[in-house]
Amino acid sequence: MTTLASLDTPALLVDLDRMERNLARAAAYTKEHGLALRPHVKTHKSPRVAAQQLALGAVGVTCATPHEARVMADAGSDILVAYPPVGTPRADRLAALPAHVTLTVALDSAEAIAEMSRAAASAGRKVSVYVELDLGMHRVGVPVIDTAIALARRVREEPSLDFAGIAFYPGHVREAPDDQGAKLAELSAALTGALRKFDAADVSARVVSGGSTPTLWRSHEIEGVTEIRPGTYVYNDRTTAAIGACGWDDCALTVLATVISTAVPGQAVIDTGTKALGREPVRGAPGEGFGMLLEHPEVLVERMSEEHGVLDLSKSSWRPRVGERVRVIPNHVCIVVHLNDFVYGIRGDVLETSWPVAARGRGERAVI
Amino acid sequence: MTTLASLDTPALLVDLDRMERNLARAAAYTKEHGLALRPHVKTHKSPRVAAQQLALGAVGVTCATPHEARVMADAGSDILVAYPPVGTPRADRLAALPAHVTLTVALDSAEAIAEMSRAAASAGRKVSVYVELDLGMHRVGVPVIDTAIALARRVREEPSLDFAGIAFYPGHVREAPDDQGAKLAELSAALTGALRKFDAADVSARVVSGGSTPTLWRSHEIEGVTEIRPGTYVYNDRTTAAIGACGWDDCALTVLATVISTAVPGQAVIDTGTKALGREPVRGAPGEGFGMLLEHPEVLVERMSEEHGVLDLSKSSWRPRVGERVRVIPNHVCIVVHLNDFVYGIRGDVLETSWPVAARGRGERAVI
Repeated sequence: MTTLASLDTPALLVDLDRMERNLARAAAYTKEHGLALRPHVKTHKSPRVAAQQLALGAVGVTCATPHEARVMADAGSDILVAYPPVGTPRADRLAALPAHVTLTVALDSAEAIAEMSRAAASAGRKVSVYVELDLGMHRVGVPVIDTAIALARRVREEPSLDFAGIAFYPGHVREAPDDQGAKLAELSAALTGALRKFDAADVSARVVSGGSTPTLWRSHEIEGVTEIRPGTYVYNDRTTAAIGACGWDDCALTVLATVISTAVPGQAVIDTGTKALGREPVRGAPGEGFGMLLEHPEVLVERMSEEHGVLDLSKSSWRPRVGERVRVIPNHVCIVVHLNDFVYGIRGDVLETSWPVAARGRGERAVI
Repeated sequence: MTTLASLDTPALLVDLDRMERNLARAAAYTKEHGLALRPHVKTHKSPRVAAQQLALGAVGVTCATPHEARVMADAGSDILVAYPPVGTPRADRLAALPAHVTLTVALDSAEAIAEMSRAAASAGRKVSVYVELDLGMHRVGVPVIDTAIALARRVREEPSLDFAGIAFYPGHVREAPDDQGAKLAELSAALTGALRKFDAADVSARVVSGGSTPTLWRSHEIEGVTEIRPGTYVYNDRTTAAIGACGWDDCALTVLATVISTAVPGQAVIDTGTKALGREPVRGAPGEGFGMLLEHPEVLVERMSEEHGVLDLSKSSWRPRVGERVRVIPNHVCIVVHLNDFVYGIRGDVLETSWPVAARGRGERAVI
């Protein structure tokens, strides 16, 4: 029988009670505020978890890559790819999604419109489009509203495309929720101004899609938003807890690790390095190191090699023995899931189930 | 027909001419200096590449994980797992390697000896052991030579184990090769002292296994070393080139990327973020950012999200258009390979072959 003790490490553990509570809480919040919830699957990359989100009332899912969209087509039919469909292979893969999929893409350029229009027409399908605005993150998105309106008009001219609305991503708001007020007010003002301009230009947005995990619980304060796309909330992580967008008891995913050496005095080494944890910082709150021990929160993963994580024991009286197991709360859970191939679901200490990270990677390789 | 242009991005490209040159150069160097070459497979994770290394004279391969060892058993029979066999599942998986494998493990604790001895005896196989010394890296390894000798004696007492030698990893030597003199002299002195003590205690080491890619070309100056275990040299990367342990023309692996947005002024965004590149710094030499463009070395990946890499164009007159393709030289290639599932081999601009990163991940999941 496979038990927790019989699992080789490193291994990803998902506390199912915590995950289900995280999913239910976001579903209740969005229902209460009349917001559509379209979770980003980048965090779990699993059609099984997506199906749970949809069963709780999510209107559809959000993906970043063609492979994520292809895998999620097994869980639901309403798929947003919140990523510019640029490059012929990418646009063609999106257009080749199964026929039951209602596809929406977010984009910010005339090139992306041309590419998606060509691919959609060639595949004989209709694709909905959100025009992406830059409302302060400065990553992708059109910063000038008149330019965005011109793109929306261009979308309308394409028979294979349908202008559905606007998207933005408030990724620059990473403060503690209590401290987000000023930035959310600024965001609301910018969005309200943009929506007025779109209305005045007679290209009204049916959907206004925003929302992240850090801003999740204040999404209703961003005036005009109709839909949110949080991803991390399914598992949460050290960053989310550190900024206060979840409690420490809401961190559902940990990395099970084994202490493999205590030979160098003053430290212990676990088998969880950059190839299991990633080298992600805590962002938006103080937080040294690359992960924190669940059982000993005063102990951090101080430095890493590919398969080694060095624990700083200087703030702890705990002295691990070689062979002891610990669980690491990662700084950024989305990367951890992407680095690994499967996940084990536990309730308390009982191993209940496992599932593959089915949408990790890029899809099938071309065999040449 | 699959061509370079028809590949979706991000995609890993291996310049086969460069890779073959890298492999041949290390083979010639070790032959010239009478050193055994036991390449670490963590960089390529491919039995196909391992077979090329073995065909060029490598004595065997080095692995870090049970999964790597299992996959490499298809390429060769002489396998070192340079990682403590701690934890019952890990030791059992190593003991269960195919019977044709001659297995050696490196370890630094009595617990690891007990675990490996138990698993080997139970599987009815003999396992060779290197006792690992800490000669300055302070990660794993025994810092006190008398303690290491006691471990070697303990190994000798176990009927299923064979004391084969000592291992160390000079991972703390990351200077430019021309600047490594002082640290290599210190290493040589420490190693010579350790070997004398081992000899005097009548537990002579048949093999002295060290060596990394940064120290590759000066390995013969570390007195007493009989075997080296470089990994990165197969592909090299921005760090290796920046410290001068290879030329820029020896960087064999690049990440093919597409410019997906130029909407925010002053920057361009490619589809290569932390999920394709990792968030690895340049170490041992100056180097901002997370990667450098092959075609425009003045342009760096300045910041990243999971699927976005923001290019800093401030030092370049190049202004990319949306849809243009570029190739990124990653800071640390081992992580990039681990993040991806397959590799495309090119000669010049011609796509010649592809292969899976067969030993990435942790092996099969337990279905519960």
